Amino acid sequence: MEPRGPVSVSAVLPAGGSGERLGGATPKQFCAVQGRPLVSYAVRAMERISWISDIIVVVSPENIETMKTIIEKYGHRRVTVVEGGITRHRSIFNGLKVFAEKEFSSHLLQKPEVVIIHDAVRPFVEEDIVSKVVMAAKEHGAAGAIRPLVSTVIASAADGCLDHSLERARYRASEMPQAFLFDIIYEAYQQCTDYDLDYGTECLHLALKYCKTNAKLVEGTTDLWKVTYKRDLYAAESIIKDNLSQRVCVITKGKESLAQVGFLLPESLKNQIKVEAISVSPSKNDSHLQNIISGQCYNFVCVNDKRCAIQEIQELVDMLEKSNTPLLYPVVLISVHLDISENNSFSIGMEDITTIKKFARETKKKNILVYGLLIQYKVQSMI
Amino acid sequence: MEPRGPVSVSAVLPAGGSGERLGGATPKQFCAVQGRPLVSYAVRAMERISWISDIIVVVSPENIETMKTIIEKYGHRRVTVVEGGITRHRSIFNGLKVFAEKEFSSHLLQKPEVVIIHDAVRPFVEEDIVSKVVMAAKEHGAAGAIRPLVSTVIASAADGCLDHSLERARYRASEMPQAFLFDIIYEAYQQCTDYDLDYGTECLHLALKYCKTNAKLVEGTTDLWKVTYKRDLYAAESIIKDNLSQRVCVITKGKESLAQVGFLLPESLKNQIKVEAISVSPSKNDSHLQNIISGQCYNFVCVNDKRCAIQEIQELVDMLEKSNTPLLYPVVLISVHLDISENNSFSIGMEDITTIKKFARETKKKNILVYGLLIQYKVQSMI
Repeated sequence: MEPRGPVSVSAVLPAGGSGERLGGATPKQFCAVQGRPLVSYAVRAMERISWISDIIVVVSPENIETMKTIIEKYGHRRVTVVEGGITRHRSIFNGLKVFAEKEFSSHLLQKPEVVIIHDAVRPFVEEDIVSKVVMAAKEHGAAGAIRPLVSTVIASAADGCLDHSLERARYRASEMPQAFLFDIIYEAYQQCTDYDLDYGTECLHLALKYCKTNAKLVEGTTDLWKVTYKRDLYAAESIIKDNLSQRVCVITKGKESLAQVGFLLPESLKNQIKVEAISVSPSKNDSHLQNIISGQCYNFVCVNDKRCAIQEIQELVDMLEKSNTPLLYPVVLISVHLDISENNSFSIGMEDITTIKKFARETKKKNILVYGLLIQYKVQSMI
Repeated sequence: MEPRGPVSVSAVLPAGGSGERLGGATPKQFCAVQGRPLVSYAVRAMERISWISDIIVVVSPENIETMKTIIEKYGHRRVTVVEGGITRHRSIFNGLKVFAEKEFSSHLLQKPEVVIIHDAVRPFVEEDIVSKVVMAAKEHGAAGAIRPLVSTVIASAADGCLDHSLERARYRASEMPQAFLFDIIYEAYQQCTDYDLDYGTECLHLALKYCKTNAKLVEGTTDLWKVTYKRDLYAAESIIKDNLSQRVCVITKGKESLAQVGFLLPESLKNQIKVEAISVSPSKNDSHLQNIISGQCYNFVCVNDKRCAIQEIQELVDMLEKSNTPLLYPVVLISVHLDISENNSFSIGMEDITTIKKFARETKKKNILVYGLLIQYKVQSMI
């Protein structure tokens, strides 16, 4: 859902953390989940939202090249990599500067009306919550997603004993995404002290303290959590696997009769599985299909009206192989051969079966499982 | 590590929650993780600690039979099932009553000096932190494990806008286990209001409010988190799998020469893997071995001095099959045949190889992988 009214929106993703809570040498945003770095999932989540203009990823100096490689490898678009500071706030401030200060960037990016701040280690944000937060920021100047507290929060006294516990219902965990009118958050960062920049963590706090802007709080969904510990990487991996198995891409060529099937099939599948239906030839230049493949779709149904469409299937297999999708899980590729002629002019012969069987044996070695399906039916003419 | 000084300790595990945050009909404590309900892991974590006398599991009336079945199936000991109330505090209070009120239980359990309160949905608690919390409770009257906050905590105003954010460093998340001098927490529950019982969640708060006891806060480890959402179940499953693959049981029979190997092997393995070494015959009556098997150990090394120890291996396979361990992952069973005679009196023949191969083929169908290893060496006599 696009935010109501004309509003220009860009996003800043701080990705400079060292991930010390995770244990291990790799900062968590660069840890591979299903073969793909976590930061790439977060970038993709933003990138999928068409009304976000620029995505600024802020990384520490030593990771700039790594980040650029990731952007190239996964074909991310609209992304600018910016060098971060030594703390979270300093990194976000650097990210904002590319919209405001000429000397900071080789090309000054268009200053957005609203800027989203999200985290590189929150891979599962959906358009709906981003849109809600942006709309609230447009109205209130600042907004952020919140979640109920999982544990009671307590204050300790100097002696390491309980001072008091907070009443859980009155408090919330501040999560991401957050969004701000650009001028407000930029003003807040310009005014805030070194102490804020070095020890603070909460952008909503800066907007309140320096611009008297009380952020609107938006109840978020359960998937907004931040990957902090190793167990969170495990969880992220399982969620991604779950999502993969529940997604199918239906490919049909331009012909009218096939396009109709390509429309009806997704309609009947969509209650059980997330379906992306496209009507293209699986040629190498189709960017939409490329995006679906790099989005790690593992199930394809190709509908065609040829007796044996090995060539088209071969093209898709080539695309899968040439994409950077790690084939950790079997890709299922169902080739549906529709015989929609009035006289059922073709019938499948031993030769065709042998051809597709042989082809399937070869692709199986690459972890791609090919199935063939022939459907014959008579087109009934209206009387 | 046993708490210093003589102290009698029992534990109460509230397991009455409905798990509404998880989504799905099964309360999370009864959700299967690697084929075993979550509550069974938490019970086992307590049960493994030898100095905990009684473990009270408090469940809602409709789950009493389920809980009793779990206790029987997984061979839990020292566990008493108690009917819970409609809230967490009421359930914990019910759990405490079995130590104090004759009319509440068919047999009054021995009142402990210190009572641990833990959660059924926290499967990974280690003896070390439990011991620390118990010792702190003995000294201070109350104690609880804490963790740093993952997200900033904020207070919202009535209009749904940010009122203020808390300085993260000053606050902590209150986790479990907690422990109390029994008389203090029981007194607190007896005095507290219906409002506390219905809307409160924090036992440390009750001890402070009604007994003026400022609980000692003990920094906990990362594994203390509570299974709350579906992603936490995923994480728990991955952690359990990780633990399984990193555990091996070395079994040797009583003979001196073998026992020596049984000592040296674990010593050299223990840097890479968690080793439990036992010196027994894998007969059906050995409760230690039974415990290891029901603890879902998936790797065994059996050291013996026979030419072909199929019978002993068979006994272990029988135990594995008869245990309730779900054989979801291959069990690896390495049979080491030590030839420690001075003249290398036996050599392995085709017949022996055939026998063990055939045996291995059969067990493989049951997801148990048997390997045989023959080691010959000469005992050097001192001159």
